[in-house]
Amino acid sequence: MKKYSEFSKSELLSEKEALEKQYKEYKDRGLKLDLSRGKPNSDQLDVSQAILSLPSSREKCFSKSGLDCRNYGVLDGLPEMKRLFADMLGIKEEYVTVGGNSSLQLMYDTIARAMIFGVEGSVRPWCMEEKKKWICVTPGYDRHFKMTEVFGFELLSVKMTETGPDMDEVERLVLDPSVKGIWCVPKYSNPTGNTYSDETVRRLASMKCAAPDFRIMWDNAYAVHDLGEEGDKLLDIFAEAEKCGNLDRIFYFTSTSKITFPGGGVSMLACSVANQKQISKYLGVQTIGYDKINQLRHTEYFADSEAVHSHMMKLGELIGKKFEITLSSLETLRGYGIAEWTEPRGGYFVSLNVLPGTAKRVYELMSEAGVVLTPVGATYPYGIDPKDENLRIAPTYPTDAELKTATEILALTVRLAAVESYLN
Amino acid sequence: MKKYSEFSKSELLSEKEALEKQYKEYKDRGLKLDLSRGKPNSDQLDVSQAILSLPSSREKCFSKSGLDCRNYGVLDGLPEMKRLFADMLGIKEEYVTVGGNSSLQLMYDTIARAMIFGVEGSVRPWCMEEKKKWICVTPGYDRHFKMTEVFGFELLSVKMTETGPDMDEVERLVLDPSVKGIWCVPKYSNPTGNTYSDETVRRLASMKCAAPDFRIMWDNAYAVHDLGEEGDKLLDIFAEAEKCGNLDRIFYFTSTSKITFPGGGVSMLACSVANQKQISKYLGVQTIGYDKINQLRHTEYFADSEAVHSHMMKLGELIGKKFEITLSSLETLRGYGIAEWTEPRGGYFVSLNVLPGTAKRVYELMSEAGVVLTPVGATYPYGIDPKDENLRIAPTYPTDAELKTATEILALTVRLAAVESYLN
Repeated sequence: MKKYSEFSKSELLSEKEALEKQYKEYKDRGLKLDLSRGKPNSDQLDVSQAILSLPSSREKCFSKSGLDCRNYGVLDGLPEMKRLFADMLGIKEEYVTVGGNSSLQLMYDTIARAMIFGVEGSVRPWCMEEKKKWICVTPGYDRHFKMTEVFGFELLSVKMTETGPDMDEVERLVLDPSVKGIWCVPKYSNPTGNTYSDETVRRLASMKCAAPDFRIMWDNAYAVHDLGEEGDKLLDIFAEAEKCGNLDRIFYFTSTSKITFPGGGVSMLACSVANQKQISKYLGVQTIGYDKINQLRHTEYFADSEAVHSHMMKLGELIGKKFEITLSSLETLRGYGIAEWTEPRGGYFVSLNVLPGTAKRVYELMSEAGVVLTPVGATYPYGIDPKDENLRIAPTYPTDAELKTATEILALTVRLAAVESYLN
Repeated sequence: MKKYSEFSKSELLSEKEALEKQYKEYKDRGLKLDLSRGKPNSDQLDVSQAILSLPSSREKCFSKSGLDCRNYGVLDGLPEMKRLFADMLGIKEEYVTVGGNSSLQLMYDTIARAMIFGVEGSVRPWCMEEKKKWICVTPGYDRHFKMTEVFGFELLSVKMTETGPDMDEVERLVLDPSVKGIWCVPKYSNPTGNTYSDETVRRLASMKCAAPDFRIMWDNAYAVHDLGEEGDKLLDIFAEAEKCGNLDRIFYFTSTSKITFPGGGVSMLACSVANQKQISKYLGVQTIGYDKINQLRHTEYFADSEAVHSHMMKLGELIGKKFEITLSSLETLRGYGIAEWTEPRGGYFVSLNVLPGTAKRVYELMSEAGVVLTPVGATYPYGIDPKDENLRIAPTYPTDAELKTATEILALTVRLAAVESYLN
């Protein structure tokens, strides 16, 4: 098959005509489809429906230690919920603090606390720093980037590679004492879907940072979100950081949002005992405690991490189908030399790089055909994709039939935008 | 009956001997009782048990507008939950933002945001203010005071009167531009149990404040917590503030913690549209949304504010009995001229003022007899009761029998400490 770059002008013109004809047919159907949202379909939520009938009795409202969980008490989470998170992630139970319904909220709280009070090792609160910078691996998660932007950090882009962030660049940047942290989604990264290699985890854990209070925000949102039994393996960053005496560097987050219910799940912050001690001075002022009844719902439903795994395999079947549909549509792009995409073994996203300079045009064509994409640039700091090439595809929300149509149009518009670009 | 102040020395000595004999009898029983915690007994929680079987079906997981509440979405709360809060409190629905499981967390978030970003009308973030002060009505709620202390405010005490804070003093203090706010529990105040008069509410809403970003933290935690049909009436501070052009001054909080489940309820922040607009820039960065399923549980259980009222009357019967037991024990103190106490028509606490200089001694005697009281001073800024006279009695947690014994010992130790004091 010939690449578009090798097409003659007349070949491009006739290709354009053919593509426009197909495009018009889709457009005339007056579709209304959505590939923008990293949220489950109701079918996936139905898999967890039984959890909403729990606790199954008054007796089950009491924790294993006999505590009435309908009442005040227990700031850092029920031991049984801590144990479940620790098992799921393969980390020490003593590092775990259980939060409310949102890990994003825990991340915000963590940085807000650092702004006002500093973290363990800080010379002053971060709001008092004259200059403060933050490393963003791109493409990455828009809500992460926006959060540090709003808190007043200068955002530094580092490129995502197949093995994780470009570590040479990260190691260079952290020699600047005003660089306070880095966002990481280490497994099935949003949106690229790749998992950090062991070497990347080791280098992050061991690198020399000029700031004494540098922090890795380790958002392991897709820790157990494999699409099949053969999932990616992520090295335990706590163990690596401990070896190098950098244990306090890690703030580790996850939640059950995409295991049970987004907005109705349970979140977690794990960190060293020294970090916990520093945080606890403020956490006890912030709240009397998180929702323990919802913790009980989860621990009654999931006896152990094996139960979580079985549950994820059921979800993986539903989501895996959607990834197949998406990848099969993208496959029609192969050979034209105009696109590259990832084929993740888990998580929620497929990342599509189109011909540089055409991502916005694809977005525009898709909109006109009634398909919403994640805005171009959303996966970059300040919302600007310097090469105008990356599109985040979120296949989980539409039905299978909707997804098939939407991704077919996507492949078509990627080709059309490329042909237009070569003609200009 | 003769007052202790009129007792001769020999009368005091024989009274002491008699009291010590009774005290020893109690002490020998090796009791373990707790009057310190403002939390419900499990009996009270059982009244709300049915809520934990909701949503009653998959269909009921969808909001009135058809939204799947098991999924992401809706940052500021379900319309049906907003309506319920607005009805309960007699405020406008448009002011209401629904939060998570903790109103204390909403208060913390509100001040943390002000520290980092300021509030509507701020010249600079509060963390950048050289001096910042906060008014605390005393005796008051320890968690309020501690929060502003931790955020670095200098705490200014203002005396609680029968009609609310000493408003002459408040009006004088707010002429200082470094005074940024005041904590208020306007109905069945913690711990005094009294409700602000209409005049107090009007003066708070209309007073001239030097700080352009002065805020009233209106924690109406006991808004519907009447012990009987004849509850206290609280004026709507929003309506009053609006008349004077001070609508932005009010941050209004409540929760269902002591209606349904502490830690498993739903919280609320109500404020002007201008405040909401300023907050929304940060709220959307902080979280994707609060737990909507728990909102649905509450709105399915409570059809309207009338249903909340009936529910509170059931709780009022249980709690009213506990207040009766407490007050009947305190009644034995009458005539000695050594104690004053409040007789609230709702809320969670009875406030007891003993002979000045003897509160700590009472606490000590109670501890030795196996009864835990709220630490003396907890109801004052920095934990220091300048007159050493106030004790907060929390009657809701013990059983009726435990409470009877505990408050009998309390009355006894108040007398014993007073006699000791007169003998010194």
